Amino acid sequence: MAKKKVAIIGAGPSGLAQLRAFQSAAKNGEDIPEIVCFEKQSDWGGLWNYTWRTGVDASGEPCHGSMYRYLWSNGPKEGLEFADYTFDEHFGKEIASYPPRAVLFDYIKGRVEKAGVRDWIRFNNIVRDVHYNDDTGMFTVTARDTVKDAETVEDYDHVIVASGHFSTPNVPYYPGFESFNGRVLHAHDFRDAREFAGKDILILGTSYSAEDIGSQCWKYGAKSITVAHRTAPMGYDWPDNWQEVPALVKVEGKTAYFKDGTSKDVDAIILCTGYRHHFNFLPDDLRLKTANRLAAADLYKGVVWTKNPKMFYLGMQDQWFTFNMFDAQAWWVRDCIMGKIALPDQATMEADPKRREAEEDAIEDDYGAIRYQGAYVQELIDETDYPSFDVEAANQAFFEWKKHKKKNIMEFRNHGYTSPMTGKKAPPHHTPWKDALDDSLESYLQT
Amino acid sequence: MAKKKVAIIGAGPSGLAQLRAFQSAAKNGEDIPEIVCFEKQSDWGGLWNYTWRTGVDASGEPCHGSMYRYLWSNGPKEGLEFADYTFDEHFGKEIASYPPRAVLFDYIKGRVEKAGVRDWIRFNNIVRDVHYNDDTGMFTVTARDTVKDAETVEDYDHVIVASGHFSTPNVPYYPGFESFNGRVLHAHDFRDAREFAGKDILILGTSYSAEDIGSQCWKYGAKSITVAHRTAPMGYDWPDNWQEVPALVKVEGKTAYFKDGTSKDVDAIILCTGYRHHFNFLPDDLRLKTANRLAAADLYKGVVWTKNPKMFYLGMQDQWFTFNMFDAQAWWVRDCIMGKIALPDQATMEADPKRREAEEDAIEDDYGAIRYQGAYVQELIDETDYPSFDVEAANQAFFEWKKHKKKNIMEFRNHGYTSPMTGKKAPPHHTPWKDALDDSLESYLQT
Repeated sequence: MAKKKVAIIGAGPSGLAQLRAFQSAAKNGEDIPEIVCFEKQSDWGGLWNYTWRTGVDASGEPCHGSMYRYLWSNGPKEGLEFADYTFDEHFGKEIASYPPRAVLFDYIKGRVEKAGVRDWIRFNNIVRDVHYNDDTGMFTVTARDTVKDAETVEDYDHVIVASGHFSTPNVPYYPGFESFNGRVLHAHDFRDAREFAGKDILILGTSYSAEDIGSQCWKYGAKSITVAHRTAPMGYDWPDNWQEVPALVKVEGKTAYFKDGTSKDVDAIILCTGYRHHFNFLPDDLRLKTANRLAAADLYKGVVWTKNPKMFYLGMQDQWFTFNMFDAQAWWVRDCIMGKIALPDQATMEADPKRREAEEDAIEDDYGAIRYQGAYVQELIDETDYPSFDVEAANQAFFEWKKHKKKNIMEFRNHGYTSPMTGKKAPPHHTPWKDALDDSLESYLQT
Repeated sequence: MAKKKVAIIGAGPSGLAQLRAFQSAAKNGEDIPEIVCFEKQSDWGGLWNYTWRTGVDASGEPCHGSMYRYLWSNGPKEGLEFADYTFDEHFGKEIASYPPRAVLFDYIKGRVEKAGVRDWIRFNNIVRDVHYNDDTGMFTVTARDTVKDAETVEDYDHVIVASGHFSTPNVPYYPGFESFNGRVLHAHDFRDAREFAGKDILILGTSYSAEDIGSQCWKYGAKSITVAHRTAPMGYDWPDNWQEVPALVKVEGKTAYFKDGTSKDVDAIILCTGYRHHFNFLPDDLRLKTANRLAAADLYKGVVWTKNPKMFYLGMQDQWFTFNMFDAQAWWVRDCIMGKIALPDQATMEADPKRREAEEDAIEDDYGAIRYQGAYVQELIDETDYPSFDVEAANQAFFEWKKHKKKNIMEFRNHGYTSPMTGKKAPPHHTPWKDALDDSLESYLQT
């Protein structure tokens, strides 16, 4: 029997987890399928591969990057540590709990460089179509090499979609946007907070992008931050030049009007209004349509496309857990493709996401949500040889994180947490976050 | 024999010209094919349909719009007038020669509203694949309705690509862009010049975007305009706070360094570095690859895809002539599809663009280029029933325009020109361009 062929779409944290999962099996002497990973960027790391570009990339396709300069992890690294490659192993020493982007990027790369899987990736390759052929039972994947400016059309036994869901912005319209006398941008296009120094900034939204981009603008000298919410304010103890206001109603010239009748003149409007699951390379029968929630629709075990179980999706859930959850998923998908895990009948597969959705709907608070996703991670790793780890310790790191944010939103990053992998508590960083203007790896790793 | 089916991709000036061409034949009692026009935006007009959005649009696909607020035509309307629908007919009176965007948009819409072709357009439909089937001799067009969130897959006898080539920015990298402490944007994402009031602006490039966006920023209060060129300065007599400098070498912080060793601190960098022919919905065998030049590669008569003459491209040339050239092309393509014009043998078709390229290469100056494209327009309209017009009068309008720009780049728009359609000279506008801050249709049409 010929080797199976597997296409992985995307070489970000999820796609790289999948490569590492297969490489791990190969290292154990197992006979793994032929793997091709398509990556539209010129390097790996997905969102962690920073780009100064906005809009479309050098090849004319939508920019993948949503990260901005000076970004530090907004959750503790103890919640996202790889079980098979600790921070201590990578850096050769203990580091603090909220690394800047460059430090986390270095960590992600370290594992896959050690695994030696870079050759499995076709960089500058954008998948523009996938379709399933009933007659052959294979997927045809059409990709364009944007450097060679030429296409490949190839058949695969399996397709694993690992293209992420924090790249395509959800951009609502408000009356007056078309004549606002400043810049309207989505968080996806936010790059350097210093652009907004001395400015009055309006932010729409109350989730991570809103709190973190607002905090960045504050840290780098914005004159004022106004955050408009549609349902409820974030409610943190914000600095003096930061206010939360009700929903935006309209804009006239440079003046923003809110639902409570108040108004504010602003220089820029930053839409922190979330992202959309967007797969412009997939036909209707293969295309995931789900809300950004913990139990993604139509995915058995959170990964198997129930409408065609030869196809898989990684990391499509809303996320408390990230890197190690992608690992748990990738190891599980690997074993499913390699025949070590058998899929149940169709009805059982379809019932699974519905049960998960119902269980998610019954969750009462964020602490319950963290436990719920921790239990999902545990469930998957129990079924593969992914190194087991103390999921409860990761939960605890998240719980402490939330309390530290509540206590002081501008100081939570000064705390350290206990690694679920090594059991050791992280040292404090040498400089408080608000005073650390240099986010380079070199600066962060100084002791 | 069943009716032929024709797919038109794009409902901008070129696509609308094609709809009008077919409708014109139908009105004359001819039996026209079934026409479906796919338009990814929610309204017609292409670039002329202004959007405040940048980056990706509401459906997550690259924004088509490259136009900015306060844009006035940068060439005289006498060079782009429709031969079958004059400005006088549309506005019921004579108007000045450099209308703002809203006025030209209104004019474009007026003709197709009169023709009644809106029902032929599927709005919010983005074509994501076209392929040709050797066995059936048909094209399969796959499109997604972004509102219904569902796909159609249909076969067509002919495909006419009218998706434009001023939508996908060409965005070069310069050292330091990744750490510039301000905004780096391409002209494609420029929207409201007031964003840059009081700022020091660096513009890269020397073509239309550079001169016009610089002029906009100047008009709306930028502190200074610095334009860097790689080959030669534009050489107009610029205002005092405007300088031309040699090529950018690198950026450090907010400081831009130029090839002559000088430097300048700037707040924003606007890349007026052109656009690319980009067709992410086309496979290699159907995909035009051409420079932005008057004689586009691989197109017989500038419109027939020589590698598969059932396929056509409109408006892919660099442009002095615009709307009426698209008309000339659309009428010609219509007659080719309807069998009124026969295509020659393959060798003759392939020789045609090569001859045109050689002739273009022999042109000595812009005046020659204008005459060359005028002659091309004349050649096409001579072969169809498109109303003949005084192409030489249009040439003359362009010649005068160039002289007026040379004389005073900030005042050229105060001049009027003679219509090649009516023979009448346009009246002067009521307000000099530099003082007319309101670009609305209502303001422009006041007398």
